[in-house]
Amino acid sequence: MAFVHIRAAKEGDCGDLMRLIRVKKTSELAEFEKLSDEVKISEEDLRAHGFGENPSYHCLVAEILPAPGERQGPRIVGYGLYFFIYSTWKGRNVYLEDIYVMPEYRGQGIGSKIIKKVAEVALDQGCSHFRLAVLEWNTRAIDFYKTLGAQDLTQAEGWHAFRFEEEAMRKLAGR
Amino acid sequence: MAFVHIRAAKEGDCGDLMRLIRVKKTSELAEFEKLSDEVKISEEDLRAHGFGENPSYHCLVAEILPAPGERQGPRIVGYGLYFFIYSTWKGRNVYLEDIYVMPEYRGQGIGSKIIKKVAEVALDQGCSHFRLAVLEWNTRAIDFYKTLGAQDLTQAEGWHAFRFEEEAMRKLAGR
Repeated sequence: MAFVHIRAAKEGDCGDLMRLIRVKKTSELAEFEKLSDEVKISEEDLRAHGFGENPSYHCLVAEILPAPGERQGPRIVGYGLYFFIYSTWKGRNVYLEDIYVMPEYRGQGIGSKIIKKVAEVALDQGCSHFRLAVLEWNTRAIDFYKTLGAQDLTQAEGWHAFRFEEEAMRKLAGR
Repeated sequence: MAFVHIRAAKEGDCGDLMRLIRVKKTSELAEFEKLSDEVKISEEDLRAHGFGENPSYHCLVAEILPAPGERQGPRIVGYGLYFFIYSTWKGRNVYLEDIYVMPEYRGQGIGSKIIKKVAEVALDQGCSHFRLAVLEWNTRAIDFYKTLGAQDLTQAEGWHAFRFEEEAMRKLAGR
């Protein structure tokens, strides 16, 4: 039987990573018409931003290692992309920006394994919590995170996410 | 008349910064009983985390420069603490974690000046947006951000903030 391994992404994984990011975003845009964003990053950006001296993000990949005698080589079927944030309450923490498992590999606990690894990384780095954001219609994801022990802060405390888009920023900066 | 100057925080400002963070959190806890957090960072943490080679956060301070002949020296009356985040849609962006102006210095546009400076920093760094979170009962803050051009993503798209606390992380990691 094939074995799933969660490991830190290497620079050479950026092609696979970009492929999965595109698949994920395309399916999200199809599912949720209110999202008007488009993917503006490239494989080169992923390489430059995640693997320099001062990386802007970190990434875990879920890799299927083939069973002995299987022809296909190892393949990346999911990822969890995170970075460090800083709270004036609690200091350094982790933010899980994006997590994805290819539909044909779901139901095998790969998503949970990624979340568990994020928790390990966070604890190793002395963090006291890790955060993420979910769309409220995505009840499958919400149930999944709640089962694993996450709290909905928007519901519990009333936190709303706000964003200044580029146009608003230019207006503010007078540019 | 005194002049307000927004500048990048220096390591020597951490004492003032910690003082303001404590004042802000104390007033937030008093205002909003649902918040159960307590400030776990110290002035030393602020120094270590914000001013090394790979800082976890960046900070702007609002400093009042005394008018000529005034006895009091320059004083820090507000701050905006931010860090860089990474979106799989849009790459590197800014997150404004915390902003504060002492009550006695409000109504002079100091908060707007801090927000404008954050927008400038974000644009200078090639970011296409900046994000922040607001509690839904804080209508004064919400009106303020909306007037400056921010969008409520929780309202517009349904984003909810989730958090894994330390206990949940330990359970996940089996520690």
